Amino acid sequence: MSPQVPVVEHILSANDRLAEANRARLDAARVFAVNLMASPGAGKTSLILRTIRALKDRWRIAVVEGDLASTLDADRVAAEGVPAVQIATGGECHLDAAMVRSGLDRLPLDSVDLLIVENVGNLVCPAEFRLGVHRNVLIASVPEGDDKPYKYPPMYRGVDAVVLNKIDVLPAFEFNIEYFRRGVEALNPGVAFFPLSCKTGEGLDGWLDWLEGELRAYREG
Amino acid sequence: MSPQVPVVEHILSANDRLAEANRARLDAARVFAVNLMASPGAGKTSLILRTIRALKDRWRIAVVEGDLASTLDADRVAAEGVPAVQIATGGECHLDAAMVRSGLDRLPLDSVDLLIVENVGNLVCPAEFRLGVHRNVLIASVPEGDDKPYKYPPMYRGVDAVVLNKIDVLPAFEFNIEYFRRGVEALNPGVAFFPLSCKTGEGLDGWLDWLEGELRAYREG
Repeated sequence: MSPQVPVVEHILSANDRLAEANRARLDAARVFAVNLMASPGAGKTSLILRTIRALKDRWRIAVVEGDLASTLDADRVAAEGVPAVQIATGGECHLDAAMVRSGLDRLPLDSVDLLIVENVGNLVCPAEFRLGVHRNVLIASVPEGDDKPYKYPPMYRGVDAVVLNKIDVLPAFEFNIEYFRRGVEALNPGVAFFPLSCKTGEGLDGWLDWLEGELRAYREG
Repeated sequence: MSPQVPVVEHILSANDRLAEANRARLDAARVFAVNLMASPGAGKTSLILRTIRALKDRWRIAVVEGDLASTLDADRVAAEGVPAVQIATGGECHLDAAMVRSGLDRLPLDSVDLLIVENVGNLVCPAEFRLGVHRNVLIASVPEGDDKPYKYPPMYRGVDAVVLNKIDVLPAFEFNIEYFRRGVEALNPGVAFFPLSCKTGEGLDGWLDWLEGELRAYREG
């Protein structure tokens, strides 16, 4: 009889283990965390600024900003008067759980209700790295084109909500919202969908209602 | 005396070795090859279509299309009557030299003058993988914002030309071309720069003149 070979039912990657630890830490402090992902320039920071301005009187918000380089985004967020931590990935194309952990280390979690994580601008790589957050959101934008769900499916599959930003410039672009939406639904049926404009404010209420609803449900759960 | 330790002066990665082999193969067939990189939706395929239409009467053009999934782009290129190969990266966030080699395998290189490679839409990862091409070009676009060189420096550093697409929508966006250009110049002084609109055709001549000049110099060199 050959020596018994151990069978491991479920192996977590190093990143997944760190993500679980992040989640436990967030839950211990009752911090609801959302990860925003998008192509470069789709409007992650703009949506964060809009969200802060709308909700900061009711909820205590903090932000972790991921970028290859520069503190441009964290500076804009900090100017709103909320705690912000900049993670410079040093060339890495995504945030990972260890980077988020280092962000958590530098935030006063016991006085935060909502943590927004802004991932590196990238429509491919962030999909593969769990961070330990409670919700994942993808921000698309009209100028990118309506074919993106068809060409970058992994990112659309794993998210809890899809925001379509920059609808104010719809007349200037050939963008078929129905075609876009069909592509999203094929990958992620029933996913929450919010067409809006961070510039004009149109459609923001739908996004804010959803986010605040998820946050309330978490805090009351 | 300890055994002599061999000192290797210059180690090429596996990808770099394949890139050198691609280059040798292109040069043997006198094919001038250009790699186009950009964020998703910046206009890589649109620029390729414009370039094919302008140059295909004078030069024999072929295209290698890199995408995570779908043949949407290769179909559009093939409709112009030029040989096109679709590389499905299967989730990989960039083309590498091995993928380009498999594209070369399926093209009639002896009857091609100009090979255009469309990389996966990604402003981070493609910068790290040499393909063996003769020129690397980055396509930025107005809706992405004027801060991208500051936030995604590696991609801007290594290219031979920067195209700024979608200048037709400049009035609809807060985009400071001088700020953008200063960021580019700080990373890549003197790099060729072509603001243009694939939609209206404005500025395309500058790009086409540059590309055709590089191609001519290569063929005569």
